Amino acid sequence: MLARPSHPGNIGAAARAMKTMGFGRLVLVAPKIFPDPQAEAMASGAGDVLAAALVVDTLPEALEGVTLALALTSRRRDLATAPCWARDGAAELARLAAAQAEVALVFGNETTGLSNEELAFCNRWAMIPANPQYASLNLAAAVQVLCYELRLAIEASRGAVPPAPTFASPGTPATHEEIEGLITQLESAAVESGFLDPERPGRLMLRLRRLFARAGLEKEEVNILRGLLASFRQPTGKRHRE
Amino acid sequence: MLARPSHPGNIGAAARAMKTMGFGRLVLVAPKIFPDPQAEAMASGAGDVLAAALVVDTLPEALEGVTLALALTSRRRDLATAPCWARDGAAELARLAAAQAEVALVFGNETTGLSNEELAFCNRWAMIPANPQYASLNLAAAVQVLCYELRLAIEASRGAVPPAPTFASPGTPATHEEIEGLITQLESAAVESGFLDPERPGRLMLRLRRLFARAGLEKEEVNILRGLLASFRQPTGKRHRE
Repeated sequence: MLARPSHPGNIGAAARAMKTMGFGRLVLVAPKIFPDPQAEAMASGAGDVLAAALVVDTLPEALEGVTLALALTSRRRDLATAPCWARDGAAELARLAAAQAEVALVFGNETTGLSNEELAFCNRWAMIPANPQYASLNLAAAVQVLCYELRLAIEASRGAVPPAPTFASPGTPATHEEIEGLITQLESAAVESGFLDPERPGRLMLRLRRLFARAGLEKEEVNILRGLLASFRQPTGKRHRE
Repeated sequence: MLARPSHPGNIGAAARAMKTMGFGRLVLVAPKIFPDPQAEAMASGAGDVLAAALVVDTLPEALEGVTLALALTSRRRDLATAPCWARDGAAELARLAAAQAEVALVFGNETTGLSNEELAFCNRWAMIPANPQYASLNLAAAVQVLCYELRLAIEASRGAVPPAPTFASPGTPATHEEIEGLITQLESAAVESGFLDPERPGRLMLRLRRLFARAGLEKEEVNILRGLLASFRQPTGKRHRE
């Protein structure tokens, strides 16, 4: 919910921020200018959220049916209770939402924030940790941070901590023998070139093993490295082909 | 760092997002339009960050001196390693920053993101958990989320017992220039040996970059590999010493 937003561009940007985090119910309380082409432009692919936005005159109307309204405030104000950090507030919203309660995030005007009266209509107040010398987040940026925290909190409360993203083409990991083959070839090349003194090998090979182990070599990488090494020993030998 | 941003308004909004989270060093890689009044307007109270922004032509220039560059990507790409979530990536940056290493957040163009080549210059890749049906965060919104996570991670790492040990004992990570130096030397050695055809380079160097990025090279390892490479080109040259 955005209370008395001044700039239609911010409304559009807030709609986009919501949609990227999977939220679609935007309520506008007495927006200064809406609808507006600037809102459309800033919404980018979230025009559907804008189109479905509910416009009301007062915050109490907007809050009908809501069990927990978390208001964002950037200043410490004379509040009923101490504000919480955004992350903790999001966790509380997620807990209630999991219990089928209606919850809301409430943001104030770009310049003046939420009025004391508006703050009093909400149940909790959250702050985004920020630079004490300049804590003025853009409205849509604040919406992005809160919606991001709420998305993570909801995922966490579902027990569905998102699995680490996977990458497109994980190569086939090299086998132990393939890596040993590379290491043997590397060692004899290093001896041959004079870099490694077989009488005083020191920790060189151990260090290289450590590096390869950490890298988690793929089959194709072992082949490339072996081809490269062979080419160093026999210049103008076989060329690399893909 | 913003690579090839198209819209000056986004540059200003990104500067504001950074400053609200306490960060001030903005690097712009080949911005389409900069400086520009729209950037000033969107920066709001972060005009100082804009004024101090460094403008360079290429990402490698921007990364000089940087040990860990975390690139934001919204699509699953052919990367060296699986991308991490923004929160985990921020924690890693905070750990390294606590050990006095230079770290960077790298964001791509609004429409096309980071190119494969730009991604290959970075060491880690992060994704923001998002709505799979619409994951397109505005550039400045993504900057806001990452800077917010980084601020929290830095605060957490300062609050915790000395964070250094994780990275202190395994070795000092190599800087961007050190790794580039190795890659340049490797490339010319591969051309000289005939393994790499400069007319048809294919993806060989990209694959090797990918491997090095995944390995997270240490300074001493770079020195060893460079010494080894030099010995292949000039047999019975300098020997490895510990």
